[in-house]
This record gives sequence, C-alpha cells and structure tokens, in this order.
Amino acid sequence: MMDLFKGVQFVDVIEFIGTFAFAVSGVRHAASKNFDLFGAFTIGLFTAVGGGTIRDLLLGVTPFWMANSVYLWGTLLAMLFVMIFKSKVVKLHYTIFLFDSIGLGLFVVVGAEKALSLGFAPWVAVVMGTITGSFGGMLRDLMIMQMPLIFRKEIYAFACVVGGIFFTIGYSLNLNMVVNEVITALIVILVRILAVKYHWELPRLKDIHH
Amino acid sequence: MMDLFKGVQFVDVIEFIGTFAFAVSGVRHAASKNFDLFGAFTIGLFTAVGGGTIRDLLLGVTPFWMANSVYLWGTLLAMLFVMIFKSKVVKLHYTIFLFDSIGLGLFVVVGAEKALSLGFAPWVAVVMGTITGSFGGMLRDLMIMQMPLIFRKEIYAFACVVGGIFFTIGYSLNLNMVVNEVITALIVILVRILAVKYHWELPRLKDIHH
Amino acid sequence: MMDLFKGVQFVDVIEFIGTFAFAVSGVRHAASKNFDLFGAFTIGLFTAVGGGTIRDLLLGVTPFWMANSVYLWGTLLAMLFVMIFKSKVVKLHYTIFLFDSIGLGLFVVVGAEKALSLGFAPWVAVVMGTITGSFGGMLRDLMIMQMPLIFRKEIYAFACVVGGIFFTIGYSLNLNMVVNEVITALIVILVRILAVKYHWELPRLKDIHH
Repeated sequence: MMDLFKGVQFVDVIEFIGTFAFAVSGVRHAASKNFDLFGAFTIGLFTAVGGGTIRDLLLGVTPFWMANSVYLWGTLLAMLFVMIFKSKVVKLHYTIFLFDSIGLGLFVVVGAEKALSLGFAPWVAVVMGTITGSFGGMLRDLMIMQMPLIFRKEIYAFACVVGGIFFTIGYSLNLNMVVNEVITALIVILVRILAVKYHWELPRLKDIHH
Repeated sequence: MMDLFKGVQFVDVIEFIGTFAFAVSGVRHAASKNFDLFGAFTIGLFTAVGGGTIRDLLLGVTPFWMANSVYLWGTLLAMLFVMIFKSKVVKLHYTIFLFDSIGLGLFVVVGAEKALSLGFAPWVAVVMGTITGSFGGMLRDLMIMQMPLIFRKEIYAFACVVGGIFFTIGYSLNLNMVVNEVITALIVILVRILAVKYHWELPRLKDIHH
Repeated sequence: MMDLFKGVQFVDVIEFIGTFAFAVSGVRHAASKNFDLFGAFTIGLFTAVGGGTIRDLLLGVTPFWMANSVYLWGTLLAMLFVMIFKSKVVKLHYTIFLFDSIGLGLFVVVGAEKALSLGFAPWVAVVMGTITGSFGGMLRDLMIMQMPLIFRKEIYAFACVVGGIFFTIGYSLNLNMVVNEVITALIVILVRILAVKYHWELPRLKDIHH
C-alpha cells in the first residue's frame, strides 16, 4: 500500500474503482445464485482479478494481485457494499455500469502495456488487453454455470479489441505514454457505453445442424 | 518414490491418504454422470491435484505432481477401489469423509508452507492454503456441470482459511514447524468435522433482483 | 511466419491443417449456441490452442501460439470457412473428421516431444501428449456448458494415451525421430478412426447412489 501512494496515484485510484466495480458485478451474480459469503467473495475476486491473472500466467510473470493485498480489500468492500445497500444497488445501476466501463478501459491499457513492456509482439498485446478486460467476467459466468455473456451479448470484448489495437499503434508510433493510455481508455469506455445505449451487437453465427 | 521413502515418511503417507480420498470423491462424482474410465480417472486426478496445480502455477513453480508419479497411482487406486467396492463405498462414507478431512488438513499446511517458503506475504499463504484445499473440488464440480459446492455448502473453504491463518501466525512467531503443521491440520480437520456434524453454514447472500 | 518456411515445412502444414480442423469444430459448436463473431472466434481458438496452452503452462514455458500469429489466422480462416460454407460444412463432415484426426495425431507428438525435450519423465510426456490432444475440446465443451465429450464418448483421449506411450518408448529406444513421429501420429489417427467406425467406447462407471 505504501508503494502505491508513492507511485502514479491517479491510475491506482482508477484501478481500485475498476476492481471494485468488477467485484460488485461478481458478488451480485453470486447473490443471484444464493452463494454463501465465501462463494460471493471468491466470485467477486475471480471477476475482478481473473482476467489479469490469466494474462500474467500466459506472460510468465507472478499474478499482479499476489504483490498487493489491495485487490482482496477492494473485493471485500464490494461484498459489504452489495450486502448493505442491497436493493439500492439496483438503483445505482448506472453508476456501477459507469465504474465498470472505466475499469474496463483501464484494464485494457494495463494488459496491453504489460505485454509490450515484456517484449511481446503487438498482436499479443491486443490479445492480452482483451483477456485482461473480459476473461474475469467469463470466469464469473462459468462459476455460476451461465453461458459466458461475452460470447453472446454486448460489444464488451469488441471494445477491448478496438482499444487494444489503438494502444498498440500509439505505442509503436512512440505516442506519449500518458496520452496513449488516456485516449485508449476513453475509446474503450465510449465504445462500451455506446454499444449498450444503442444495443450494438456483433453478428451471430446461425446454427448449422451438426 | 525412492526420495519419498528417504524423507519425512509420515507426511507422505498422510498425503497419499489425502490424495486417495480426494480422488475417490472425484471418481464417485464422475460415476454419478456415467463417465467412462478415462473421464473418471481425469476427474479423480483433477480433484486430487487440481488445487495444488493452480497453486503452483500461481506461485510460478512446476506443479508438484509432475515430479512424482505417486499421485497418478493414487488416483488409479482410487478408481479401482470405487469400481470394485461399488455400493460398499457408500457404507464406508464416514471413513472416506475422515480421510478427506485429513487430506484437507494436510493440503492446507502444504499450500501455506510452500507460499511462505517462496517468500510470499502471509496473506498470500492463507490464500494458497485455501486454494490447495478447495479448488480441486471446484474443478471437479465444473467438469461435471454442477454449481461448485464450496460456494454453497459446508464450511469447507472456511476451514481452510482458519487453518491457513493459524499456520501463518505460527510461522511468523517461529513456532516449531512440525508442531505448527500438526496443530494447523488438526484445526482444519476439527472445523470441517464439526461443520458437517452441526450443519454449520456461512450466511448466504440473498438475491437482489438484477 | 518467415521462420516457419525455413524450418520443417511439412510438419507446419500438418499443424496448420490440425489447427484449422480443431478451430472449425470449436466454431461449429459456438454456432450451435448462437454465439456472436467474437464468441465463435474465441471458442475456435480455445479448441485449437487450448490443449497446448495448458501443456505449456504446466511445463513452465511461454504458450506456443504467443510466438507466432499463424494460429490466430488459422482460427479466423476456420470461422470464415464455417460462415461461408454453412450447410456444406455438414457434407464435408468426413473430410473435417479426417483433418481433425490428423491434427490430433500431430498434437500428441508435439506434446510428448516437448515434455521429453524439457527433461520431464516419460509418464509426464504421455500426460502432456494427451493434454495437448484432448484438453482443447474439453475447454470448448466447458465454455458452451456441455459435459465434456472426452469424458463420455469415443476413444478420443485413449488414442492420445496409446500414441503417447508409443512415442515415449520409441524416444527412450533412440528410434529415429522422424520415424517415431510419423508412426505415433499414424497410430493416433488409426485408433481414432477405428474407434469412431466401430463405435469403440471405454467401459463406463455405473452410478453408485451417493
């Protein structure tokens, strides 16, 4: 925690908000299945850090959350938040959606940047940005036995791909890092919000009897 | 195997019993879904070594079972045991439950100790003890398309957390290692047995329409 | 890509065919659940590279597909193929099955060889050959909420185990590598084709009420 407050503080605040919003989503899904406290906490944590964990395992580095307990505290806070505010959480739907989108934007930036800084190819960075942003929700859905939402609805993963591509191009063009980070995050947030507002969906594959 | 018999033999016997009991649980679940021999063996293996495998991947070390074939043999033995004794396995329910609890106690100790010996923070050790003890069963449930039991019933994971916290405190207080290991395992076993006997459950989150 | 065309070309062509066939299987399963384009691509990719990815994480090396974008292109091609030829894909059933079997044979060889070249024990090589060949399909089934097929039907995984054992014995007997690779792949392909033709199945475990 101490190191956090010495470093780039704004990004840390954003990351905490994103972690919190992702964890809230996980805890609410767990509550819909009547999970117990441990289950709700675990699903919240999977949703918040699952994407980044899969990314770090693929990149061959220690999962980020094992170096800082702030992600566990954020998840705990999210669980308490859902438990205390219960039905009010539904009314806060739009605020949480906004936090979730902000988190998504940041997660894509963090994922793509980490891959590039480790020397992986640009297309790997796009993949890692997408995994960071969307695989936490995929794990959440698998754990509660629901067909993963990212495969069926909303331009969730697509927003990650678009952001990841922009960030990687900016990176290769030596765009100022902070500018690149902010614009990428804004693109992801914008695509996500517009997609939900205007019900954008990717084309679906029709079943071919097999 | 040779190295095993030179080292701390008692722990190895306990670990084999734990592996066997966990594998029996996996094979029985697979049988309930009419899996074939390969499926039953795989689910048995996932249940027995899945938690430790996820732990080792997170810790960045080679999964423990890849260094010693004893875990595969234990799983094979468990499958033969279930096939041969069939309905008698049901009567042995309490004995298997006891073995399972003993295995759980040991798995928590092994997981927490490994994290601490690799220099990770105490809270990471608690997480790793819990993962080692409970994620094998989570994988088993996912593979047979059942909502993971550890999220819904019994103080299974809670016993791991309690044991992990005790072990980590004992470790930081330089408690004699063997004493710490034995007491931790006994705590996990006791909490688990009491939880089942008295139907202890963690509070559940109520669904909030979302 | 450039490096590919300098190296062992024939194996690369075979590997591309195998990747394509596995991805087609994933995309078709995704289509049967009305997934969108992103979902179909992801399930196709999971099916094609999932087994090798789990293998590489267990072996402690960077997942193979992160070093070469050919696997993503192969998956994209597979998705376009399914979308364009739609119902004709059903008529191509036997051809795709053949490609799938050829891919399986090669995947087993690649998995076993990689484990042995990294110094793991022979039985680990058999496990890794089996994981490489069969865990992609397992991930595919989990993602679309179906009980994994490899645990219930066809001698799919069994073909991998038989091939893996043969390859490992040949390796330890210093059999010429290319000969060993080709014979192993042929064994896997043959067992698979015969298993489907003659409806071979492994015995199933009967449910014991528990």
